Amino acid sequence: MIETPYLLFLGDAPDQLAAKVAVGIKDWRPENAVGQYRMDGCKADLGLKDMTLTEAKAAGAKTLVIGVANRGGVISQEWKKVLVMALEEGFDLASGLHNLLRDEPDLVAVAEATGRKLHDVRVPEVDYPIANGIKRRGKRCLAVGTDCSVGKMYTAMAMDAEMRKRGMKSTFRATGQTGILITGDGVPLDAVVADFMAGSIEWLTPDNDDDHWDLIEGQGSLFHVSYSGVTMALIHGGQPDALILSHEPTRAHMRGLPTYQLPTLETLRDTALALAKVANPDCQVVGVSVNTQHMSEEDATAYLAKIEADLGLPATDPFRFGSGKLVDALAAM
Amino acid sequence: MIETPYLLFLGDAPDQLAAKVAVGIKDWRPENAVGQYRMDGCKADLGLKDMTLTEAKAAGAKTLVIGVANRGGVISQEWKKVLVMALEEGFDLASGLHNLLRDEPDLVAVAEATGRKLHDVRVPEVDYPIANGIKRRGKRCLAVGTDCSVGKMYTAMAMDAEMRKRGMKSTFRATGQTGILITGDGVPLDAVVADFMAGSIEWLTPDNDDDHWDLIEGQGSLFHVSYSGVTMALIHGGQPDALILSHEPTRAHMRGLPTYQLPTLETLRDTALALAKVANPDCQVVGVSVNTQHMSEEDATAYLAKIEADLGLPATDPFRFGSGKLVDALAAM
Repeated sequence: MIETPYLLFLGDAPDQLAAKVAVGIKDWRPENAVGQYRMDGCKADLGLKDMTLTEAKAAGAKTLVIGVANRGGVISQEWKKVLVMALEEGFDLASGLHNLLRDEPDLVAVAEATGRKLHDVRVPEVDYPIANGIKRRGKRCLAVGTDCSVGKMYTAMAMDAEMRKRGMKSTFRATGQTGILITGDGVPLDAVVADFMAGSIEWLTPDNDDDHWDLIEGQGSLFHVSYSGVTMALIHGGQPDALILSHEPTRAHMRGLPTYQLPTLETLRDTALALAKVANPDCQVVGVSVNTQHMSEEDATAYLAKIEADLGLPATDPFRFGSGKLVDALAAM
Repeated sequence: MIETPYLLFLGDAPDQLAAKVAVGIKDWRPENAVGQYRMDGCKADLGLKDMTLTEAKAAGAKTLVIGVANRGGVISQEWKKVLVMALEEGFDLASGLHNLLRDEPDLVAVAEATGRKLHDVRVPEVDYPIANGIKRRGKRCLAVGTDCSVGKMYTAMAMDAEMRKRGMKSTFRATGQTGILITGDGVPLDAVVADFMAGSIEWLTPDNDDDHWDLIEGQGSLFHVSYSGVTMALIHGGQPDALILSHEPTRAHMRGLPTYQLPTLETLRDTALALAKVANPDCQVVGVSVNTQHMSEEDATAYLAKIEADLGLPATDPFRFGSGKLVDALAAM
């Protein structure tokens, strides 16, 4: 678990896109974002107060989060100066970079000398159990996709935010590095050893109040041959009570697999629901989340209406039209 | 790599199923199994001679193989006493447990002092790729089970032996510690990191002659919530042309999951085939392999006849009645 709140390190980001992890934190957990730290030449700006390390420390920040992609896959000497100073000032460091903090001997040495922690959120830090399949209290919702990268994380984040606004009990449960950095906690599922995948999701979504919802971040797709095992473990470890179908209608083929076509929403519904019922016979498919970013508003509206008619389920683009319909569906259960 | 022959360590196995590693070695490489070592309370028996370490050493055994698998794979203090004595007596140790021999400081220290080797066959030694889903040449057969430990490895081993006897081209492809201990190579799939599971199976079953069959060792079950993700990765990474359904009819519930019932063979057939067709649209279910060890011969024969009538597929117990029918089905494709 990463200590919050954060100082968001933007480094020398060449543009706003390079800082998308920091943008995600600021958008979804503004209470975790005390300020931003920008180096000379930084082209990203979160609209947060620029702070020195000392100012951020005084403002209560506990962890400096690397919210920017590094250039060339290495942690540069310029970054190092700031990171070392941050450790000396009493900050923990957190990163989702491929280049691990723990693989940098100078950072490790300073962290040890100062008693600070280095969090590499791509690497599991917990010995997860093997799944036991025992029914847990509380409710769980999982988004399953026709493909990878169709908006499953965004859907869960948006639903969680809407549920909190309505005073419902909910928790977003991160299963990827961006989600873990945003919330400070979670399971880096794609890096978990095969036998413990489902157990890690049971661990992530324990017993809770009967009226509490875990919004579990989806990963991969049952129809994406590279990652379908990860999705399967999420479905059985998560024991979802509710499934949301996620789709991106303009995709010409499965992401990274040019010869593979996307399944229909009907096929996804039938396949995912049958498998989910193994772990939770009461599971239902409650709605559809569509990423319409490549469609006009008119086309998007018409597409969603057709989905609703064809599947008899509420359908929305949570980014464009809000997640209210999906939350209504959970509230009605 | 591992010196033979073996003394097979059964420890305090709670039942015969827990000793399936040792059973596999004894059945498929009997020339490697000098004897068995059982502790107080051991409920498994290979029908081999019970030996002390000294007796086994005198009989020529070179390596003590931990032939028993506990849930979670913990090396208990009671086991340790025997393992340390074995090293002192001049045995190497070989294990497929999650709890690695090399992670036990006392075993490492004694092995170093005595000049013996610790073999952890479960540890992946290859950087597997992410699966690309590209169709490969040659043919592949995979057994999928209604549950774990229903005879999938036996089925593949028996079919491989029968195919070689007939002069067909075939290779048994090990995906678990027993198979790896028996054949000397393979992928320890349950220890592979999630993102690389399907890719490891593509790596294990590369392009081959058009008339060559890979007999891929199955793992877990799509209906076993602890391990279903591993099974999913095998189905999509393996791109099977032929599926064999594996079943143990007397099982009261899913192994280790008292509240979970086994699916019917029809449900397994429909679920596995639909998922397999994502990676290989030409995939067919070609036969049924039934573990009838807890049934009389009369009951077993009647059960197999009923399966054949109900499913319209050849059905056999490869251990009891041979795998000929299943190989006939592959030969006819």
